[in-house]
Amino acid sequence: MEFKVIQNCAESSARLGEITTPHGKFETPVFMPVGTQGSVKALSPKDMEEVGVKIILANTYHLYLRPGHRIVEKLGGLHSFMGWKGPILTDSGGFQVYSLSKLRSISQEGVTFQSHIDGSTHFLGPKEVMEVQKALGADIIMTFDECAPYPATRDYVLNSVKLTSAWARKCLESKDQDSRQALFGIVQGGTYSDLRELSATELVGMNFDGYALGGLSVGEDRKTRQRVIAETVRLLPPNKPVYLMGVGTPRDILDAVMLGVDMFDCVLPTRNGRNGTFFTSKGKVVIKNACYTEDQGPIDENCRCYTCTNFSRAYLRHLFMARELLAYRLSSLHNICFYMNFMSEMRNSIRKGKLGEFRKKFIEEEDNDNLNSDQKTILDH
Amino acid sequence: MEFKVIQNCAESSARLGEITTPHGKFETPVFMPVGTQGSVKALSPKDMEEVGVKIILANTYHLYLRPGHRIVEKLGGLHSFMGWKGPILTDSGGFQVYSLSKLRSISQEGVTFQSHIDGSTHFLGPKEVMEVQKALGADIIMTFDECAPYPATRDYVLNSVKLTSAWARKCLESKDQDSRQALFGIVQGGTYSDLRELSATELVGMNFDGYALGGLSVGEDRKTRQRVIAETVRLLPPNKPVYLMGVGTPRDILDAVMLGVDMFDCVLPTRNGRNGTFFTSKGKVVIKNACYTEDQGPIDENCRCYTCTNFSRAYLRHLFMARELLAYRLSSLHNICFYMNFMSEMRNSIRKGKLGEFRKKFIEEEDNDNLNSDQKTILDH
Repeated sequence: MEFKVIQNCAESSARLGEITTPHGKFETPVFMPVGTQGSVKALSPKDMEEVGVKIILANTYHLYLRPGHRIVEKLGGLHSFMGWKGPILTDSGGFQVYSLSKLRSISQEGVTFQSHIDGSTHFLGPKEVMEVQKALGADIIMTFDECAPYPATRDYVLNSVKLTSAWARKCLESKDQDSRQALFGIVQGGTYSDLRELSATELVGMNFDGYALGGLSVGEDRKTRQRVIAETVRLLPPNKPVYLMGVGTPRDILDAVMLGVDMFDCVLPTRNGRNGTFFTSKGKVVIKNACYTEDQGPIDENCRCYTCTNFSRAYLRHLFMARELLAYRLSSLHNICFYMNFMSEMRNSIRKGKLGEFRKKFIEEEDNDNLNSDQKTILDH
Repeated sequence: MEFKVIQNCAESSARLGEITTPHGKFETPVFMPVGTQGSVKALSPKDMEEVGVKIILANTYHLYLRPGHRIVEKLGGLHSFMGWKGPILTDSGGFQVYSLSKLRSISQEGVTFQSHIDGSTHFLGPKEVMEVQKALGADIIMTFDECAPYPATRDYVLNSVKLTSAWARKCLESKDQDSRQALFGIVQGGTYSDLRELSATELVGMNFDGYALGGLSVGEDRKTRQRVIAETVRLLPPNKPVYLMGVGTPRDILDAVMLGVDMFDCVLPTRNGRNGTFFTSKGKVVIKNACYTEDQGPIDENCRCYTCTNFSRAYLRHLFMARELLAYRLSSLHNICFYMNFMSEMRNSIRKGKLGEFRKKFIEEEDNDNLNSDQKTILDH
């Protein structure tokens, strides 16, 4: 993997970059749709190409449990298995072991846990996670980390940072010399500035291909998150990509881009889509609201996706009310398209040195939308 | 609507025809995928165009209850509402009132019933059904019929035939003089030859644009169904299309084509698809079977659909096991493609005067498949 900064922003820490992987290159800041089980929910690879998706994320924990990484390997690796020709990033499973599995037991060696699918007992440590990710064959892979809950005591988080560093070193050691997979380290440290610094310093000392900020979006408030991001990014080498895991709303992403983050993933566009919430250039559209029953207009007049160019709000509302499968696909497609356009606009703004202007406009519109949404809610009741 | 017989088969009653509607023309025998609620489940209009779908069916009963025909009308009719530019046929709701609704009460005027969605009480008679179908705006619409259960006494079925004739006449009378919608009559009569004759004769006397065979596929055996089809088709005018409602498997369709049927609809390809059963040129593939866990091959080597040209059986099995939404779409797409190819092969065989040969080969392969399926089932257990 190669990372190149194309342009730094004059008015913030934002930057335009380019990442080259064995499966193609893409510009940053980039958003990676989440294909948890080897499928970005409701979307085909062709759909994703059509709305400009360049790289997707898949979950090591889920694919390890089902269908199993050895099966994916036998079928030619994840790219071939799921029919996605572009770059893929796999997370390490640390966060899923923390959030999904039952009866975790953490030791120096790794984590023993019960599968959320069938309750069977499994062990994953840094060595195992590297083996799984090698078998899956993603372009970018992640170290195994211990994600502390929020809130957590300083002692708990300190221990989690130490484990994360030790595991990161073991991941680095287990990596094949001739591997073409890029390995990113994950900075932990909760909301404690000094522990984030400790974690970042130790990981940077190991010289990873990129650095991720883990343990955020777990319950802390926005201001705290912003502080942690700002403090941590400053400690990371400017010639390596920075990835903020699991974040977030367009506003969260915009704020993080201004703090120097290059890569994002989040289930929000697809999950909200499946719940009938559409992102638009004029705010969120909750399609089940009665006000859309006879609405002939598209979800977003400014959007050129298949959903917006072919179907009315009234039809989409009908699909959701009737629980038609097509509903989830059309909404996911639009929301991913919205995120792709949003990232593209941000990149263009950085290119033109106008990201501050972009942010100002975005926040004004968001404030207007919130006002409109409140009015709509009142009218609906 | 215009119907033209292009070629009659020398060795059977099969025929190649062409139907021209306000939204385009298509050749017969034709299969119409079912878009119950204004959406062929899991498929977009673009998907359907890509696999060669020419005409789809939508259900009057469902669209009347939700979103309501007046809303569809306000949004420009069903074509515009669901984004399907080709021909549409709407059934009259007779069969759904019979099969889905609760607490039916049938009178000379029509049927009072409770919605299967919310239990609300509704009345549909011939006049109402014509109003609903006019609002929906399909190219081909159907008369309101009374579908007798199976088995039913001669008296019950005789009454059902009389009602169906009376209602058919009322439908004809309620039709606008300048309407561009073609209206088909539905022949009832259960499995009683003389009652089928009575029904067909009465309807033919009213001179409909086409004739449908209703009240089949409700539990009678294949031999009985074949007899009824053969007896009834003979009584219908050769210059009008014949539509066998709700049938069926490829074998059922082939047999009915040889008896002179031109049009078909059935939920089988999409419903079986959603259950993980794929139709292939070498028999059914039940994708959840363990034997496909590491199967790198496509569902059907002879198929050029998006599913078969991009994904392995192993990946499709994984999507089904993991209940990924993409599973239902890829399976429905393939099965509809299979049906379209099957119809196209039949039409070409009629054109070349080789339908008998086609049937012989089809039945040999089906017998082989049944043998193979049995072996597979044994191996799986």
